[in-house]
Amino acid sequence: ARPKVGYYYTGKSLSSKLSEEIKKLKVKDFKAIPAVVSDKSSVYDVIVALFVQDVGTIYIVSEGGILEGVVSRKDLLKIALGQVDIHKIPITVVMTRMPNIISTTPEESLLAAAQKLINHEIDSLPVVRPVTVEGRERLEVIGRVTKTTITKAFVELGADKLIQRGERP
Amino acid sequence: ARPKVGYYYTGKSLSSKLSEEIKKLKVKDFKAIPAVVSDKSSVYDVIVALFVQDVGTIYIVSEGGILEGVVSRKDLLKIALGQVDIHKIPITVVMTRMPNIISTTPEESLLAAAQKLINHEIDSLPVVRPVTVEGRERLEVIGRVTKTTITKAFVELGADKLIQRGERP
Repeated sequence: ARPKVGYYYTGKSLSSKLSEEIKKLKVKDFKAIPAVVSDKSSVYDVIVALFVQDVGTIYIVSEGGILEGVVSRKDLLKIALGQVDIHKIPITVVMTRMPNIISTTPEESLLAAAQKLINHEIDSLPVVRPVTVEGRERLEVIGRVTKTTITKAFVELGADKLIQRGERP
Repeated sequence: ARPKVGYYYTGKSLSSKLSEEIKKLKVKDFKAIPAVVSDKSSVYDVIVALFVQDVGTIYIVSEGGILEGVVSRKDLLKIALGQVDIHKIPITVVMTRMPNIISTTPEESLLAAAQKLINHEIDSLPVVRPVTVEGRERLEVIGRVTKTTITKAFVELGADKLIQRGERP
């Protein structure tokens, strides 16, 4: 008997087609410009940078944009509450540092990056590429993927506007 | 001539099917439990609640869960930096208050809620329902939709696991 043409595409099968489409999306086509500060900064400098750049998480980098640490609004709020002079505390004392930073790469799927955000309960992933500095393997920060990035992708999927992709502001 | 069956479902058409499926998703099936504190709280109380409940934004409610205000980590960080006694400042002094709060409803599409998050550059939308209190129209808080909610929905779409829906923790 002839299969009922069209039926094949409904229900379960449509949803797996949608899933396949989503799996094709790559980090490199959605990543935003990273918000970074020097590892020479004080806690106060970083809080100012966080407000100026209007981000929830900022990356701490050494010369050449090498990823050294990550600090979130939550971390900074905790420190600001303490009886400490935030002008005097170096950010390197309070940041989450390598190798304990969850990151992503340009070629990773946006879905895998979104899963990392959920599984690790974090708001932001630095997009990195490996570089060799003085004979050591390091990671250079080249972008960021946040829950805002994923929310924008969801809106574009829903509005059927996933047409041209490129780096986002 | 017979149409080439199957061709119809590729490319543009698949992406509009994806869009149609996303448009069907409702806030009520994805909303999380709201994080709320009493409008009698001090700024300090609210910061503690934010850490205990581990949320980025908290809703300020009066008796009966009526929405009065919204405060984010960013707002609290700004206040914590000031030369003020956060134990003595009532949260009502610093919160964003009604009617300046962007909210959503159970019947709204998740896509429309995601668009509000992006367009208004906010992290969290209270899910509300209208109630009459002492003859006045007010909004009761019954949930929240955040960028985390949208990221989770994106992951479920991508993992093809949008099966059973209900209130999320």
